[in-house]
Amino acid sequence: MSRFTPTPADRFTFGLWTVGWQGRDPFGDATRPALDPVESIERLAELGAYGITFHDNDVIPFEASESERAQTITRFRAALDKFGLAVPMATTNLFTHPVFKDGAFTANDRDVRRYAVRKTLRNIDLAAELGATTYVAWGGRDGAESGGAKDVRLALDRLKEAFDLLATHVREQGYDLRFAIEPKPNEPRGDILLPTIGHALAFIGELEFPELFGLNPEVGHEQMAGLNFPHGIAQALWHGKLFHIDLNGQTGPKYDQDLRFGAGDVRQAFWLVDLLERSDYQGPRHFDFKPARTEDFDGVWAAATGCMRNYLILADRAKAFRADPDVQAALRDSRVEELAVPTAADGLTGLLADRASFEEFDADAAGRRGMAFERLDQLALEHLLGAR
Amino acid sequence: MSRFTPTPADRFTFGLWTVGWQGRDPFGDATRPALDPVESIERLAELGAYGITFHDNDVIPFEASESERAQTITRFRAALDKFGLAVPMATTNLFTHPVFKDGAFTANDRDVRRYAVRKTLRNIDLAAELGATTYVAWGGRDGAESGGAKDVRLALDRLKEAFDLLATHVREQGYDLRFAIEPKPNEPRGDILLPTIGHALAFIGELEFPELFGLNPEVGHEQMAGLNFPHGIAQALWHGKLFHIDLNGQTGPKYDQDLRFGAGDVRQAFWLVDLLERSDYQGPRHFDFKPARTEDFDGVWAAATGCMRNYLILADRAKAFRADPDVQAALRDSRVEELAVPTAADGLTGLLADRASFEEFDADAAGRRGMAFERLDQLALEHLLGAR
Amino acid sequence: MSRFTPTPADRFTFGLWTVGWQGRDPFGDATRPALDPVESIERLAELGAYGITFHDNDVIPFEASESERAQTITRFRAALDKFGLAVPMATTNLFTHPVFKDGAFTANDRDVRRYAVRKTLRNIDLAAELGATTYVAWGGRDGAESGGAKDVRLALDRLKEAFDLLATHVREQGYDLRFAIEPKPNEPRGDILLPTIGHALAFIGELEFPELFGLNPEVGHEQMAGLNFPHGIAQALWHGKLFHIDLNGQTGPKYDQDLRFGAGDVRQAFWLVDLLERSDYQGPRHFDFKPARTEDFDGVWAAATGCMRNYLILADRAKAFRADPDVQAALRDSRVEELAVPTAADGLTGLLADRASFEEFDADAAGRRGMAFERLDQLALEHLLGAR
Amino acid sequence: MSRFTPTPADRFTFGLWTVGWQGRDPFGDATRPALDPVESIERLAELGAYGITFHDNDVIPFEASESERAQTITRFRAALDKFGLAVPMATTNLFTHPVFKDGAFTANDRDVRRYAVRKTLRNIDLAAELGATTYVAWGGRDGAESGGAKDVRLALDRLKEAFDLLATHVREQGYDLRFAIEPKPNEPRGDILLPTIGHALAFIGELEFPELFGLNPEVGHEQMAGLNFPHGIAQALWHGKLFHIDLNGQTGPKYDQDLRFGAGDVRQAFWLVDLLERSDYQGPRHFDFKPARTEDFDGVWAAATGCMRNYLILADRAKAFRADPDVQAALRDSRVEELAVPTAADGLTGLLADRASFEEFDADAAGRRGMAFERLDQLALEHLLGAR
Repeated sequence: MSRFTPTPADRFTFGLWTVGWQGRDPFGDATRPALDPVESIERLAELGAYGITFHDNDVIPFEASESERAQTITRFRAALDKFGLAVPMATTNLFTHPVFKDGAFTANDRDVRRYAVRKTLRNIDLAAELGATTYVAWGGRDGAESGGAKDVRLALDRLKEAFDLLATHVREQGYDLRFAIEPKPNEPRGDILLPTIGHALAFIGELEFPELFGLNPEVGHEQMAGLNFPHGIAQALWHGKLFHIDLNGQTGPKYDQDLRFGAGDVRQAFWLVDLLERSDYQGPRHFDFKPARTEDFDGVWAAATGCMRNYLILADRAKAFRADPDVQAALRDSRVEELAVPTAADGLTGLLADRASFEEFDADAAGRRGMAFERLDQLALEHLLGAR
Repeated sequence: MSRFTPTPADRFTFGLWTVGWQGRDPFGDATRPALDPVESIERLAELGAYGITFHDNDVIPFEASESERAQTITRFRAALDKFGLAVPMATTNLFTHPVFKDGAFTANDRDVRRYAVRKTLRNIDLAAELGATTYVAWGGRDGAESGGAKDVRLALDRLKEAFDLLATHVREQGYDLRFAIEPKPNEPRGDILLPTIGHALAFIGELEFPELFGLNPEVGHEQMAGLNFPHGIAQALWHGKLFHIDLNGQTGPKYDQDLRFGAGDVRQAFWLVDLLERSDYQGPRHFDFKPARTEDFDGVWAAATGCMRNYLILADRAKAFRADPDVQAALRDSRVEELAVPTAADGLTGLLADRASFEEFDADAAGRRGMAFERLDQLALEHLLGAR
Repeated sequence: MSRFTPTPADRFTFGLWTVGWQGRDPFGDATRPALDPVESIERLAELGAYGITFHDNDVIPFEASESERAQTITRFRAALDKFGLAVPMATTNLFTHPVFKDGAFTANDRDVRRYAVRKTLRNIDLAAELGATTYVAWGGRDGAESGGAKDVRLALDRLKEAFDLLATHVREQGYDLRFAIEPKPNEPRGDILLPTIGHALAFIGELEFPELFGLNPEVGHEQMAGLNFPHGIAQALWHGKLFHIDLNGQTGPKYDQDLRFGAGDVRQAFWLVDLLERSDYQGPRHFDFKPARTEDFDGVWAAATGCMRNYLILADRAKAFRADPDVQAALRDSRVEELAVPTAADGLTGLLADRASFEEFDADAAGRRGMAFERLDQLALEHLLGAR
Repeated sequence: MSRFTPTPADRFTFGLWTVGWQGRDPFGDATRPALDPVESIERLAELGAYGITFHDNDVIPFEASESERAQTITRFRAALDKFGLAVPMATTNLFTHPVFKDGAFTANDRDVRRYAVRKTLRNIDLAAELGATTYVAWGGRDGAESGGAKDVRLALDRLKEAFDLLATHVREQGYDLRFAIEPKPNEPRGDILLPTIGHALAFIGELEFPELFGLNPEVGHEQMAGLNFPHGIAQALWHGKLFHIDLNGQTGPKYDQDLRFGAGDVRQAFWLVDLLERSDYQGPRHFDFKPARTEDFDGVWAAATGCMRNYLILADRAKAFRADPDVQAALRDSRVEELAVPTAADGLTGLLADRASFEEFDADAAGRRGMAFERLDQLALEHLLGAR
């Protein structure tokens, strides 16, 4: 199946924390040893990836001294150069250490907030140095379990303040870097601020430099709220705010599963790839998944390969779907393209004057017209299943 | 319990379609006869309500002639005057008739979209005439079950176009009327556009006259997506966009239950009332619920009364919670108010220069500080239960 | 794609209420006219179905007189004979009429319970006369919204009583008929008794004639509770209790969608068909779906055809999956068949005496063995997608 | 509020792993140091608990030598004696060590299954020695993420085999010990076997010694599937199978929150306590919760105290509800007790002969009778809120 073999031109990227996940979960210890980031770089390059991404502490231990930090970065850069991987995105770990137990930019404790902003600023400098153009912000613990513990309006004030500070720094330093906010509804907090694509899009509108901010939506995060991920991505694109994307799999509202891309809801995955490939989104196809805890390293690399293969298979299926004359006829019968026609190119005055639009409109007759959606959806499913 | 007896000063309002719901559901026929809107007005006035709200077709049948329409409105206005109820809000039925089976403002069929806008324009005129200051827009069928059937980006274009037309009309007519968009994730469509508070807030930012648009969030709609309703309301308030609110009850992600307010998640109801009563929201407390299909009219009025009583009980509990010195001490121990302090009043430069914020910050020590949230939450629960 | 064209040998059956659904939903009126059961029989026969199923009131109106009933049945039988369709299953409508608003066999009102049992007994006689061998029982309104309104333990007593009465009748009449209980977690009641496959299986164990009772699980009903449908079916098979099955589609915990089979979670559909085709289940493949309300009759028949095609495509994919040598190797690497080996063929004594099983067992070494599940799952997905 | 102060007579018990939880979650490290079991015993005794429960590795480290094990047990027993706490229940940790990554009794690897049974047998001996009468079995990793990785029917065979072995041991040793199976739908596996109360009840019916097996349902586990917990407990009681109970809180389908009892869905908590207190359940009221990760030890003990106080408050509210004459009148109006009357004390023959039950039954008139559930539910809510 050579046509489903990835190459760097496909722009597939992986978080270091994905293949490097050791399998620690709420009920169990690690099942795999730590993976040297340099080995991850080598293996992902071999598999056809374009780049890797990281949290500061994926590369540099939380407790590292300045000299250890410098040495680690040097070795890391050498590996990137050697194996030809890019670093299109980086992010900050603001959730593992106990200091962040009540959040980071919105922790009730002011000194924790200051520390979180400083930790982020520092890693932004490194990200810029490594050539990253996207900086992801996931406020995983910015939330609450109790209604009394967090004043959400104040928390949004502080969140805005933190992002304004970060953006100011990026502007002052002249970095070619934009921020991508990653929404999530819950876990590890009972409720997290900016729980969905929508909430994050709205929030961005209130920032000092909104043009520097977009989204990094994650498949599973929206599906944990039962939301349709391709619909969310379409809205993000509509706002011009799809800056990055986290691809993985999830099977409905439950704990955050981070299955490999394609596993979980494969129909939504199909519509997602169909949408991305037809959109103007030019960024990486970034996998943020966890190879199952049952696996050894063979399983880890099999899962990473599967993510990329599935994207390529789905892109192939979506392309064939759009090219199929039967599909094109079905789309016409469903009047899908008629939605591109303005409702009232004649303006309000024209519309109000048009008796055919209301006074003489036969609603009963219009209500009897079939939309032909079942046939269209069946064609899509058969393309997905490779049955046409 | 006279202190829990509602009066018009409490600003409680009810949709005509709530007490008038006949109990038709996906599996069963109506269990109650139609209720004359005039009777609803009389009874709700007796129970202490401040006003009523309506869809056009709650008052005027879809098929009514012009003269029937005029007569109906005259009789309706007379009843409002007689019993002293206000009409602070009105809305359009864009979902019952088969013509709207693929949506209204975003139907694939252009003539359906034109008809939907005209139907809405017409009822806006009536709403303004009756003194309504809020016009709710719920696009209940603006959505899809299949990824191929609806181009979401085009649909958002059409949704924006429709709202721009409506706003233009309101401005041209000089109405004192603002729009409140009501999000809902699904039902009756598999996925609905603008599924949450967040998505609707973001969308408003793209409209031609955003100042005329805000939200009408509904308790159960956000909870159908597993989202925290008070958090959503807090974000809406933060954006200055809480224009109206639909109070009811729901027990998690399932069909839209529309339980009476207080039923369902009573802890979220407590935090919601606590938030509303301490906010600058001045609008009605509007109940959008369905009296259980098992009930006769005695049950209908018992349920309506329960909605109002529960709001008043919760408001009483929330007030006592805030006034309790133990609670105030617990809030201090949880540093809840410290979130009002800017993270970096010293600005980016000051923050970067402050070694205490990072280089000399003892993260381990800070991570050991307890947040005291369990005690605070227990106090809240005991206030809710009337146990303090 | 003639290999995906259904024939009666495939044993596909449809409820009359599926293709006959008029599209009435909680927010909208019917979008399609009533469909004559005789026409449904003719069309389904043409499409390759094996049989049809019905609620009493799908064929005979609730209000029909005795003579109307007799005439209707005669005409119905004639159509079945003419078009060669079987009636393998029938069931009772115990939910549409207001009399059932608090349930049927567990209504608080005793006279409603008596009426419900009588209505069911009567239709059992008709079912037997028409050759049905399965009688489905869905207690759609046997539930509650409030904890005080229903004593669940008493309700289970009454449910048992009703089923014991029905079974007694079947035995006394010598009918070749077994009952299949259909679980559902909610909708149209807030919570329904026997909410899942498990609860119904357990309940059957308490009946007077448990051998006469099994299950009729429905894809969407289990998925409304976020449960894995193939897992549930496997457990039902394990208990020897899969008497019938309702195939359709659902997209997670929300209202009961009744999508055509294959839509919704197509990965679970794959594993379901893989399981059914390898099991000893001999009953019909019964579709209980609702053609989307957006459709005219062309869409209805397209959806019905899609249900059958999707089953056949998935059966083809599952067969190829099992036949693939790479899959067989992967199954070995995952030790899937090792689960067929008894854990302790040596019995408790042997196990306790086996020091290798505990005292000398190297848990750390065993914990390092990879399970190879990611590779296996990827192979399954590629078979599903027709990509191998 | 001395009447809400717990005493041993209230039979409150706590898992050692609850107050001892260090706060490690999927995204973060421990926030609290390890707690010496002896200290937990002392503190819980002071707070008014009746007993404690444990997994083997809560007391004895996985890697302990025989002599360390013996010393640890001696010290543990001394503390129990000193502070007067009982050990009514114990259980096995079959999930933390990597060896259990594919489950325990149903792991694909036979040697892992043998080891799991041996580990359990050993701790059963200790449990019996310490006087425990209930042994809980939670097969947390007995499940799968992929349909191909686990043959569910074989897995149920192995699960039955394991439980038959354990029961044989208990019988041979003459222990006064029964097993309580704990269902859970997912987490840490994508889907877990025996996902709900119902599935576990059904499974027990197939065991060799079913009388030795019952359930240990957990509030949050059923609510993760959106199921009504009091309904599930009522069915477990109906089957005579409520052997133990895990009390905690959860806010709907999401990750397993283990909130303190009373937090989460407090209305279901009310109906649960109402049910338990009126039932013949005599076992402990066992709390299986996690004090929030934000807390220090003050918060831990505050949360533990809250669990007990909330139970006592709810028991008080439920008692007042049942004693209220208005409630008793409402129950009559709702005909709740009429469900205790057999539907057909006259038997099948009598029922069939009773023309009033069908031929002369006025279904329309019966359908008009109101059930008065809204009033009843409102009374319950007002009792819960302490507002009557």
